[in-house]
Amino acid sequence: MIYGIIFGANSYEHEISIVSAVVLKKVLKEQKKFIFCDEKKDFYLIDENKMNAKTFSSGMYKKEKQLILKQGGFFVKNILSEKKLEVDVMINIIHGKDGEDGKISALFDFYGIKYIGPRLEASVISFNKFFTKLYAKSVGVKTLDYKVLSLQNENNEVSFPCILKPARLGSSIGISIVKNEEEFKYAKDVAYEFDDEIVVEQFISNIKEYNLAGCMINDEFCFSVIEEPKKNEILDFEQKYLGFSESNKINEANLDDNLKKKLKESFTKIYNPLFKGALIRCDFFVIDDEVYLNEINPNPGSLANYLFDDFTNTLNQLAHYIDLEKQIKIDYKFLHSINGQKGKM
Amino acid sequence: MIYGIIFGANSYEHEISIVSAVVLKKVLKEQKKFIFCDEKKDFYLIDENKMNAKTFSSGMYKKEKQLILKQGGFFVKNILSEKKLEVDVMINIIHGKDGEDGKISALFDFYGIKYIGPRLEASVISFNKFFTKLYAKSVGVKTLDYKVLSLQNENNEVSFPCILKPARLGSSIGISIVKNEEEFKYAKDVAYEFDDEIVVEQFISNIKEYNLAGCMINDEFCFSVIEEPKKNEILDFEQKYLGFSESNKINEANLDDNLKKKLKESFTKIYNPLFKGALIRCDFFVIDDEVYLNEINPNPGSLANYLFDDFTNTLNQLAHYIDLEKQIKIDYKFLHSINGQKGKM
Repeated sequence: MIYGIIFGANSYEHEISIVSAVVLKKVLKEQKKFIFCDEKKDFYLIDENKMNAKTFSSGMYKKEKQLILKQGGFFVKNILSEKKLEVDVMINIIHGKDGEDGKISALFDFYGIKYIGPRLEASVISFNKFFTKLYAKSVGVKTLDYKVLSLQNENNEVSFPCILKPARLGSSIGISIVKNEEEFKYAKDVAYEFDDEIVVEQFISNIKEYNLAGCMINDEFCFSVIEEPKKNEILDFEQKYLGFSESNKINEANLDDNLKKKLKESFTKIYNPLFKGALIRCDFFVIDDEVYLNEINPNPGSLANYLFDDFTNTLNQLAHYIDLEKQIKIDYKFLHSINGQKGKM
Repeated sequence: MIYGIIFGANSYEHEISIVSAVVLKKVLKEQKKFIFCDEKKDFYLIDENKMNAKTFSSGMYKKEKQLILKQGGFFVKNILSEKKLEVDVMINIIHGKDGEDGKISALFDFYGIKYIGPRLEASVISFNKFFTKLYAKSVGVKTLDYKVLSLQNENNEVSFPCILKPARLGSSIGISIVKNEEEFKYAKDVAYEFDDEIVVEQFISNIKEYNLAGCMINDEFCFSVIEEPKKNEILDFEQKYLGFSESNKINEANLDDNLKKKLKESFTKIYNPLFKGALIRCDFFVIDDEVYLNEINPNPGSLANYLFDDFTNTLNQLAHYIDLEKQIKIDYKFLHSINGQKGKM
């Protein structure tokens, strides 16, 4: 299997995506091509030996081979010709905007490229925390009560403590927990820096949190172990990402079989069929033995590899199951019929 | 204003899109470039004089200039160079898959191209009739009660008469009204030809239907007249599209001010802010003076030009208001901080 790993792009989580790609270099034991999308959305083929932080932070990546995206895949640009980059399946490891909002899925579907990652609809539903809540409810999975604030609709009645989240960002960016009116005002300004819409939820301290990753392979679910993430109120950007880049240590949750079953049932309701083709991580809360979806990570950091016993094998199986979007045959029957009529155009 | 009109693509509504583009040739009194996306997703610049059914149904379009889509726009391919096609704003008039499912928005946002049409989220919400219902409810607009059938979830208890619609198609394709179990079975087979999910609603004959188009220009709404579409149970593909290609005759609805106001209020709730940048048509039902959303057409046939008093002026104003997606500046602070630490990657 030759994987193409696409990362970077114009996202607040651009740098986290680079870390994710470097982690995949280490943990995915297959042939890999690294395709970097820079902030201007030019594509570069990065030599595996150069997959380190400095290549990107120094701008040295610009000396690598540039790629062109077109029908059928990525092509290496030479002076007189273009050579197709050999890849079996792409892995979308762009976090946030461009990667998780649906653009990469749209590009790959449009250009006929196989990929592991959420499809267009799944991206939009999971990227927007408000849509996630509507969707979760519709498939029978609870979420915490919430309110949506927007610049259009300044509904400011909230009770404290509460947590503010920009509607469309992951990775804890722009998120605040506030305990009073003054903190609330400041937190709104922070969140509006990142999005025009904010989702506000009651903040419950010491809430039980469990993360479960998985994917569907030929109608069978493949689940990871269930992780109980460490926390310090909420994980900030550095804890979360320096954390996962360092090591494989995880806190496997010590749960009874009934709760494990409930978490897996909730995951299944969320995943099937919307997230087919993706390896996702669902982050859940548990209150009084009831499961609540917190959020869906359709391209989790480093594909949540540390939660799987045999990550490479899981990914290989998933990759075999990926299909191209179904294409439609155009027969021009309708236009032929117009041409046969009086009022022809 | 130089408009680029993109049409065609790999969609069941490919041919309708060609008709839409031909209608825009006639009714949009500005400079226009016609960009055809063929079923294989190659782009061609079609000479205005060749904008007729035969160019496409005969395959003669392949003799026109081929275009390349890349950062900043479409480029005309010459033997030794590439020349940028001058366009101020694109109009997305691709109906159905590729155009209304979000792919074209994604491509244009990714490549930094201004366009009139639904953005990515708006596309996904309006393309999928199930998501449309969830969304409408969340913004306080009623829809008819419904049930979702899927190959995964064969919930077959329905009451008759009912109407079956593939979840993701417009233009009446694959839609059936059924009166008994036998018709229901056949109609399901028809709908599953087009989609894995079917939305089923009660069928109410002689229901009042009203169509309203509009867009937001600088925080002000610009509404079309309200149309009462002619009907024969439901309009089929040919009635609907041969109809609008022929003439400008519309049935303006004779409504009291209160109902007009309700229809416009419902349109506003649906549109703002999700559909900013698009000229959409909402199709409503009215039962006992209550407004129900039937469907959202984010790229309506020929942009519903026949509903506007001064279509060209409306479009020009909307075009001035269109912005590019906001881009993020990447500063590599986080990677620099990793490089300064012990566990550097």
